[in-house]
Amino acid sequence: MKILVLNCGSSSIKYQLLDMSNEPVLLAKGIVERIGLEEGILTHKPEGGEKYILKTAIENHTIGINLVLKAMTDGNHGVIEKLEEINAVGHRVAHGGEFFSESSYITPKAKDNIQKCCELAPLHNPANLKGIEAMKALLPEVPQVAVFDTSFHQSMPDYSYHYPIPYEFYDKYKLRRYGFHGTSHKFVAQKACESLGWDITTKKIITCHLGNGASVCAVKNGESVDTSMGFTPVEGLMMGTRVGDFDLGGLLFLMEKENLDIAGANKLINKQSGLQGFSGVSSDMRDLDEAAESGNKRADLAKEMFAYRVKKYIGAYAAAMNGVDLILFTGGIGENDADTRKRVATDLDYLGAKFDESKNACRGKDCNILSTEDSSTKIIVVTTDEELVIARDTKRIVKAL
Amino acid sequence: MKILVLNCGSSSIKYQLLDMSNEPVLLAKGIVERIGLEEGILTHKPEGGEKYILKTAIENHTIGINLVLKAMTDGNHGVIEKLEEINAVGHRVAHGGEFFSESSYITPKAKDNIQKCCELAPLHNPANLKGIEAMKALLPEVPQVAVFDTSFHQSMPDYSYHYPIPYEFYDKYKLRRYGFHGTSHKFVAQKACESLGWDITTKKIITCHLGNGASVCAVKNGESVDTSMGFTPVEGLMMGTRVGDFDLGGLLFLMEKENLDIAGANKLINKQSGLQGFSGVSSDMRDLDEAAESGNKRADLAKEMFAYRVKKYIGAYAAAMNGVDLILFTGGIGENDADTRKRVATDLDYLGAKFDESKNACRGKDCNILSTEDSSTKIIVVTTDEELVIARDTKRIVKAL
Repeated sequence: MKILVLNCGSSSIKYQLLDMSNEPVLLAKGIVERIGLEEGILTHKPEGGEKYILKTAIENHTIGINLVLKAMTDGNHGVIEKLEEINAVGHRVAHGGEFFSESSYITPKAKDNIQKCCELAPLHNPANLKGIEAMKALLPEVPQVAVFDTSFHQSMPDYSYHYPIPYEFYDKYKLRRYGFHGTSHKFVAQKACESLGWDITTKKIITCHLGNGASVCAVKNGESVDTSMGFTPVEGLMMGTRVGDFDLGGLLFLMEKENLDIAGANKLINKQSGLQGFSGVSSDMRDLDEAAESGNKRADLAKEMFAYRVKKYIGAYAAAMNGVDLILFTGGIGENDADTRKRVATDLDYLGAKFDESKNACRGKDCNILSTEDSSTKIIVVTTDEELVIARDTKRIVKAL
Repeated sequence: MKILVLNCGSSSIKYQLLDMSNEPVLLAKGIVERIGLEEGILTHKPEGGEKYILKTAIENHTIGINLVLKAMTDGNHGVIEKLEEINAVGHRVAHGGEFFSESSYITPKAKDNIQKCCELAPLHNPANLKGIEAMKALLPEVPQVAVFDTSFHQSMPDYSYHYPIPYEFYDKYKLRRYGFHGTSHKFVAQKACESLGWDITTKKIITCHLGNGASVCAVKNGESVDTSMGFTPVEGLMMGTRVGDFDLGGLLFLMEKENLDIAGANKLINKQSGLQGFSGVSSDMRDLDEAAESGNKRADLAKEMFAYRVKKYIGAYAAAMNGVDLILFTGGIGENDADTRKRVATDLDYLGAKFDESKNACRGKDCNILSTEDSSTKIIVVTTDEELVIARDTKRIVKAL
C-alpha cells in the first residue's frame, strides 16, 4: 500500500511517498517551491538515489503536484511504474477547528468544514485546500485523508481551552485555544510509551516539541489536556522568531510608541522576536550555540530564556496533571541541542526527574533515555516523524472505508 | 512615632495614620474621592469612633490632603492634637522602574527618578507625585518615604525579567517584566515565615496574591525570582476584569475583527475581560460563588479557569525553584474564598502538598495553615496589610536618617 503524503503551503509543497504495506518504507521525498513565481523549483529525491532538480515556472498547486507525480513515475528518478500504484493521499491540514477531533476521510462535507476553518488559519488552510483540489483533479479515484495539526488537542477540557475574554468572542469567532503540532505530540508520546513498554492510557507525559516553532503538551492517559500554543501558533514558548508569551499591555505599548498597525504588530511578534529578535544573532539554535560559546552574552541569555520558559511549562503541566511520569524532548532543538536539554531538565529533582548528563551528551538515534536509572520520572528524546503519522492515519482510515 | 500612609490615585487619596512607636496601632483611616470633580467627598474614620463625612469641592491633591490633615486634628473626629505629631509620611508609589530595588527616602533625586517612571505607569506615578508635592507644600519639614509596588521584584534574574522581543526595546523603553504587588508578596512571605518559625533565607515560597488584581510570586531565599505580572499589571493571572495571559495573535485578531484601536484594545483587556468578561456575571468572586451555586455553569467555569491558571503558575514557579516549601494565599479572594483555594490547592500531592479541606472551611483570622500535619509542603493563608509595610519601611528609613 503506497501513500503519498502532502504538506501544501501557499507557495510550496512538501511530499513523501511511503510504502506502508508492512513496516513503513520511504520511497521518495521532495519539495516544490516558488509556486506562482517566475521560476519555480522541484527538488525530488528517490530514497537511495540521486537528487533530481527541475527549474521551471510552476503556476499553481495543480501544476506543482503534477510535476511531483511525473517525477514519481519517471524512468530515471521515479520510484513507481504508474500512478495507479498510489493507493491514497494524506494531507497535512493546519486547522480543523472544533470540527475534527481526529484525522478524516475527505468527503465534500469534510472539505466544507476545512474551508470554514480558513479564517482560523488564513495562511495555511487555503493552501491545504488547494492541494486537496489539485489531487482530486489529477487522481480523482484515489481516496484522500486530512490529518490536522489541531485535532489531537480537541480533548482539552473547557477550562484549558477557554480564554478569559468576553464569552461572545467564543460564540462569534470560535476564539479559543486550539494548539498545534498535535500530530507530533501524539506520535512521540506513543512512540516513547512503546519503547518503554508503557500503557499510555495510565501515564502522565509532557512532550516538548522544540523546533523553529515550539510547543509543549500535557498528555494525560493518552489525551492532550493542555498545550502552549493557543488560538494562533504565536502563544506559548519563545521560538525562532515568534515571541510566545508576552504582556499584552507591552504589545499595545509598542504599537503606540513604534506606530505599528495590526500587520506591523503581527510581523513584530511572528517574525522579529524570539531567539532572533532578542539575540540579534539568529533564529537558529545552532548559531546561538556557537555565538554563546564564543562569549556572546546575549546569545547565552537568549538560550537561558528559551530553556527557562520550557521549564516553566513543564512545571505548569506537572501541576495540571498532579505529577508527571515522562518528560519528552523532540523537534530539531529537542532532538539535537544537548545544551538546551540540559538547561531545561536539570534541577527538576522535585519532580523525581534526575537528569543524566553523560547520557545527554552522547545520545544516539531514535528513543534515548536521558534520566538516571533511579529517576522516578523519566526523561527521553524521541525523533518525531509527522509524515509517518499522516501515512499511518491515512492507511487506517482508507482501510476502514 | 506617628506615620501617615498615603496612597494617591488620580482622583482619590487613601490614607491611614498609624502609631508605630511600639506595636503598630491604627489611629484613623479614610479616603478622599472625586478630586477635581464638582463635588468631592472625604470619608474619615477615627479608630473606635464614628465615621465623619464631608462633601465639598476638592480641586486638587493639596486641598484633599489639607482636608485629611484638618480631620486628623479636629476637636471632634481628630486623633492628634497638632500636625507636629506626624513624624513621617509614607507613600505608596506604583512604579520604581530599575531605579528602586527598595523603599527610598524622598530626595529631589528620588523624585526625579519617580518622575522618569511615569511613562511606565502613566495612570499611577503622576498621581503619586502629586501626593508627594502636596505633602511637601503642607508639611515641608516632615520626612517622606516612597514604597514601591515594583521594588521587591528587582531581584529577579535577567532570564526571568526579559521578554523575547527585539533587545532594542529594552534599551529604548526599559520594556521588561517589573511585576507589581511587591509590598504584599514580601510582607506575607515574611509574616508566614515568622508564624512558622522559619528562616526565610533558606525557603522556597510561592505567594498567591488573589484580589481584584492578582499575581503570583516565586520567593526564593527571601527574594522575588519571578512574578506573573509583567511590564504592565495585565499579564499573568485571570483577574476581576483583566484578561491576564492571552494569545497575542488572538488580541490582534480581535482588534481587526472588532475594529478596535489601541485604546479600545486596552479597554478590552483591562476592563472587559477576566471573571467579569467571561462569566458575564460580575468581577467579584463572591457574586460568582453565588451564581455558580445557583447553577450558572459559566460562572462555575470562570471560577475553574481562574483557579486552574493559579495552579499552573504554582507549578511553573515550583519548576523555577526546583520545589516549593510553602504555598501561600492572600488578598481578598485568597483570604476569603475557600472554594477557590480548594480548586487551586487540591491535587498537588506531587509537590508534597496535602490540602486539608476541613481546615480550609473553617479558617480564622491572620495566619492559618491549610495543609495536613504530614504535608511536606505547607499551604497557608495570610492576611496582607500593605499599609503596615509602608509604615514599617517609613519608620525604618526615617530612623536611619
